Amino acid sequence: MTRYLLERPHQLVSLTFFSERYESAKSSISEDLTILKRTFKTRGTGLLETVPGAAGGARFIPYIKKDEASRFIDDVITSLSEEDRFLPGGYVYMSDLLGRPGVLHQVGRLIATQYVHDPVDAVMTVATKGIPIAQSIADYLNVPFVIARHDSQITEGSTVSVNYVSGSSSRIEKMALSKRSLKPGSRVLIVDDFMKGGGTVGGMQSLVKEFDSTVAGVAVFAEGAFEGERVVPNYTSLLRIHATDDHVDVTPGNYLSEIYTPERFSQLKD
Amino acid sequence: MTRYLLERPHQLVSLTFFSERYESAKSSISEDLTILKRTFKTRGTGLLETVPGAAGGARFIPYIKKDEASRFIDDVITSLSEEDRFLPGGYVYMSDLLGRPGVLHQVGRLIATQYVHDPVDAVMTVATKGIPIAQSIADYLNVPFVIARHDSQITEGSTVSVNYVSGSSSRIEKMALSKRSLKPGSRVLIVDDFMKGGGTVGGMQSLVKEFDSTVAGVAVFAEGAFEGERVVPNYTSLLRIHATDDHVDVTPGNYLSEIYTPERFSQLKD
Repeated sequence: MTRYLLERPHQLVSLTFFSERYESAKSSISEDLTILKRTFKTRGTGLLETVPGAAGGARFIPYIKKDEASRFIDDVITSLSEEDRFLPGGYVYMSDLLGRPGVLHQVGRLIATQYVHDPVDAVMTVATKGIPIAQSIADYLNVPFVIARHDSQITEGSTVSVNYVSGSSSRIEKMALSKRSLKPGSRVLIVDDFMKGGGTVGGMQSLVKEFDSTVAGVAVFAEGAFEGERVVPNYTSLLRIHATDDHVDVTPGNYLSEIYTPERFSQLKD
Repeated sequence: MTRYLLERPHQLVSLTFFSERYESAKSSISEDLTILKRTFKTRGTGLLETVPGAAGGARFIPYIKKDEASRFIDDVITSLSEEDRFLPGGYVYMSDLLGRPGVLHQVGRLIATQYVHDPVDAVMTVATKGIPIAQSIADYLNVPFVIARHDSQITEGSTVSVNYVSGSSSRIEKMALSKRSLKPGSRVLIVDDFMKGGGTVGGMQSLVKEFDSTVAGVAVFAEGAFEGERVVPNYTSLLRIHATDDHVDVTPGNYLSEIYTPERFSQLKD
């Protein structure tokens, strides 16, 4: 039962289903769910919402508690601050971290915690490096993810494309998304690995609009230092990277202070 | 305990750790593991290997049984055979499937089953569409995945690149992988969404060689019809897609017959 619920976050599983699957009375399933709910809460795994009544059942909503989230962000900062990650031009090498299942799981849990009570229908990113993050978040929200591309390929069918100004290089770029990939009226969470001026995220916002959908939020793994006003006003970042010519400074992003506000926190305590 | 093991496939977790975490005697932890082992086996979740002795513990090795694998492949074939997936030029639209967490989990479990007893140190793919599959397989094998790219970016640091002949277009192409991403002597599982002539997979094989590593295997989601000899002799495919100008034929790939041989099957029955 633990496995079944863990593998289907945000999905209501009926008591009847469990009762038939495990050939047990609904009352004993109910008791087991109560134990599970307590365990999930103690371990900080997530919320097990139980819905009473004939159409009732249980729904697992993963989240991460502030202390675990904070420890994870500190660990990532320690890793990224290693000397040999520094790249010419003030960049930081982080592809290895974003290819480790353990790191991706935690990133997914962190961002999904932000949407514990806000509906999200799809996660959107643009190729290439945002994909693993989008996939992991989509996993914890149990919704599909869609990938916009700079080069529209024949295997995508008809696409909708937008032009946008890439903030860091001030060039006009283009991104396209398959017409079939998003239903009108979707609430879309926009995700990327890195944001500087916010041009790319702005491009995705335009794409969402083209699909008659709305932006549920913007989340990035790391934000870079940026002088001036960003095209994107509201976003969540796990990290802030400030790189100069010979040194990189990695600090926590706005995630912890944005997410664990008293209002939200009381919800997470249910 | 179920959750802890499920989240860390292929990793040996010591009895001592569980005993401290749950403040229980090792003997009762042992009993619980025996129950869990039986449940995992009955449900076809995977193998719970228990290692006896002072340094002992338990290791969860996910796999999928033949009937569940076969049902999944049939379901995917049904989805892909829908009329409106047909694209000009004999292509099939399948990006939506490869953006659904449920489908990706199953693809990951299927391919990971093939490596239940063969060591894999890393999963490799090339941008863009193989990434979600590589990530899901890496998740079930609990190893990192690396992404080769056609355009080497500044954020990758120094790269190693190879040229290869793309089979379908007979063009010479290039792919590059960050120098830091793979340790020498790694056993690498090569993964892609689609293979026709095998040129791209061949490129990845050359890359693996450049990193003084060996190819543990090649797995693709779908293979296309190809006249002539492929550059890649051994591979596993979940699907075979044969598209003509006005019709698409999707059939099972060689997966089921390759994996569930009597020798392997007896191992899966432990």
